[in-house]
Amino acid sequence: MANPVVTTRIIRRLLSSGAHARAERLLARVHPADLGPLLADLTPDEIRLVIDLLFRQHRAATLLAELPPEMLPEIFEAIGDQRLADVLARLEIDDLLLLAGHLPDERRETVLERMPLGKRDELRHAELYPPESAGRAMTTNFLALDQKMTAQEAIDSIRATGESADPILYLYVVNDQRQLQGVVPIRRLVSSPSDALCGDLMIAETISSPADADQEEVARLVARYDLLAIPVTDADGCMLGIITVDDVIDVITEEATEDIYHLAGLSEEDRVFSSARLSVRKRLPWMLLNLVTVFAAASVVGLFEATIERMVSLAVFLPVVAGMGGNGGIQTLTVITRSIALGEIEFSTGLRAVGKEMTVGLMVGVTAGALSGLIVYLWLGNPIMGLVLWMAMMITMTMASLIGAAIPLILKALGQDPALGSGVIVTFCTDALGFFSFLGIATLMLNRLV
Amino acid sequence: MANPVVTTRIIRRLLSSGAHARAERLLARVHPADLGPLLADLTPDEIRLVIDLLFRQHRAATLLAELPPEMLPEIFEAIGDQRLADVLARLEIDDLLLLAGHLPDERRETVLERMPLGKRDELRHAELYPPESAGRAMTTNFLALDQKMTAQEAIDSIRATGESADPILYLYVVNDQRQLQGVVPIRRLVSSPSDALCGDLMIAETISSPADADQEEVARLVARYDLLAIPVTDADGCMLGIITVDDVIDVITEEATEDIYHLAGLSEEDRVFSSARLSVRKRLPWMLLNLVTVFAAASVVGLFEATIERMVSLAVFLPVVAGMGGNGGIQTLTVITRSIALGEIEFSTGLRAVGKEMTVGLMVGVTAGALSGLIVYLWLGNPIMGLVLWMAMMITMTMASLIGAAIPLILKALGQDPALGSGVIVTFCTDALGFFSFLGIATLMLNRLV
Repeated sequence: MANPVVTTRIIRRLLSSGAHARAERLLARVHPADLGPLLADLTPDEIRLVIDLLFRQHRAATLLAELPPEMLPEIFEAIGDQRLADVLARLEIDDLLLLAGHLPDERRETVLERMPLGKRDELRHAELYPPESAGRAMTTNFLALDQKMTAQEAIDSIRATGESADPILYLYVVNDQRQLQGVVPIRRLVSSPSDALCGDLMIAETISSPADADQEEVARLVARYDLLAIPVTDADGCMLGIITVDDVIDVITEEATEDIYHLAGLSEEDRVFSSARLSVRKRLPWMLLNLVTVFAAASVVGLFEATIERMVSLAVFLPVVAGMGGNGGIQTLTVITRSIALGEIEFSTGLRAVGKEMTVGLMVGVTAGALSGLIVYLWLGNPIMGLVLWMAMMITMTMASLIGAAIPLILKALGQDPALGSGVIVTFCTDALGFFSFLGIATLMLNRLV
Repeated sequence: MANPVVTTRIIRRLLSSGAHARAERLLARVHPADLGPLLADLTPDEIRLVIDLLFRQHRAATLLAELPPEMLPEIFEAIGDQRLADVLARLEIDDLLLLAGHLPDERRETVLERMPLGKRDELRHAELYPPESAGRAMTTNFLALDQKMTAQEAIDSIRATGESADPILYLYVVNDQRQLQGVVPIRRLVSSPSDALCGDLMIAETISSPADADQEEVARLVARYDLLAIPVTDADGCMLGIITVDDVIDVITEEATEDIYHLAGLSEEDRVFSSARLSVRKRLPWMLLNLVTVFAAASVVGLFEATIERMVSLAVFLPVVAGMGGNGGIQTLTVITRSIALGEIEFSTGLRAVGKEMTVGLMVGVTAGALSGLIVYLWLGNPIMGLVLWMAMMITMTMASLIGAAIPLILKALGQDPALGSGVIVTFCTDALGFFSFLGIATLMLNRLV
């Protein structure tokens, strides 16, 4: 499927032995999407050589767009300003935006100045849209038609664009003000008589996205309506560009990574093969926040030192209350953040969800708490201790569900990312609550307990 | 964008007042993808009415395919056998497979018998493929061409299929044995002279998927090569069907949900608005497993009761070691499981990842541990206690990274889901290890500590 005969080792050997023409022929046979993984292990100097070879094939831009972003700074350094400007100028605007973002500030202007004026303006214009918006994700590479054009004229305009890497799937009918009127799927164009009018062929109720919409919102529209591309319009409904489904897949994958990462307090740049130094730098702040919360939880235990002193076995069961509460809270948090990410829940229906989760927490708490109490009774022969644990677990697990459901909904209502850091907050709350309820009840019943 | 004028309340009122013709006209204007959310709040009887109305528009099948699966059993009950068979028979095979899976066993044969023979055979055949395989996800609705057909003949064959909900994006060139030879993008067909031969127009090196490949693998191919549809072939390379990009988006979204859910020990069916009873039933087994692990962790603390008895403040810092270790372990686990899901890592490169994570764990452990030790020193004025905590945190956080990285890689090597339950295992390991190292070192240094 992928081209298995071309390996990183072969490329490397050809480059080092100076057999550049052979390397070039081999590279010509590799699918653009396979270039990135194939070349990711080369040194920046080797990559510069490959870029030179691909430049002649007009494929250097594709390579840059496919490489893992963490490689870019080193590679950019290995390429001269003019060559880099020439390569970047070949990119679609969405890829150009992404790559230009990795240029070091001090070099940015020098490289951009060497790009054709039109491309440079397009970039500057695109950078006015907010980060992660539809305006930044769109390409301006689409075919606009007039209502009065015939199917044959539309087909001729496709032909005029020549061979292009981007497949044309829809043609967009616009009026004189470039306002979007409707779309004509290419399939419909093909099956229609050649003198049919585009205005009659078009689907008038077109799903589109404003340029300032969040790209996640756009991805959801594309997924929901099974679209292959979605038009992006300005406030007046004028056609600005399109976002194609392959970019939507990237957005969906990235957003899922972000959600999973944020629940664990991780930064998106902290990938499996990014440097240990980067990972440490990204994780330390979270760890320090976590440190504050674990010490806060510890201080709750500290409040009850006198109680533990009278009955040391209480300390043994602290991990039981905290562990079960934490797990319950994280389960609820996961269900709620995922449903927010999938657009299944709003703040209004959120209350229903909080109620449901609390019911589940109470039921699981009653069951697991009773079982825990029984184990403790059989272990220590102390029925009061079992009762204390049962009560503490019911309270903790019900409240854990409330907290796990409420925190992401509140963050979302405040316009924050519902996943970011909520794992740390929920675990802190369930720990503190678990310790407080278990040791608190134990203190109240201490005379019967000992 | 969506049709905002038609609300659940309006539909409900029209149905109850007997204004069925008006309800039908309104429903005709709703996008198929909006039917599900619009009708999800209706009672099964109301839905039966809507299905009758949509049946006349040939849209009942689409509605069933768009409804949340948890609603299906009740709705199936409200529809007669023959009507249900008629509706199901209109579905593409991939949707039919999904819906037939929700028929209760005792009714399944009765309904299937009433379906046209061809559709029934197609279903039985598709059910031979393993669950979540390409064979089950594909539709058999594709256009196959002969190499010797001209572009015009290919266009005529598109026209012959009539208007269809499924967009035709690629045409597949097959030989006499129906073996896949190449694909012709519809755009290329449109821009070619009408007498060009399909054999000359086709892209010969076609990316395809075997029918028994995992659907996640297929989704990765489609995402990597920016495809709009991927052909599915049998062992001889014969064309069986295609999987379109909209289904791939569903697979990617579902797999992401599965990953996030499995890390927290949740079942996929446990959704935000599924019944509390179902959620409890699905979560209890995990909670009981978790109960075993928290009691195991508690018994580690129990080993050191005598030590705690001599110095109760040790109990106060148990949450610090466990909390920091657990967080570090879950971070590593998250990075590794996500990279496995994205196909970025194999068992071989996994060792490198384990090494990197341990380095990160050690560095974070040294830093956060030193800070914790300092806090404890300032809090209690006990430098030895600070030292004990520092050492315990270095050990715990380094080992937490090892465990968090190794467990998903081992599960994956054993052919298991790397995310499933690994959160519970990692947390148990870090808890037990944290308690053991902290209380163990404290016991060894007890004479200097007190």
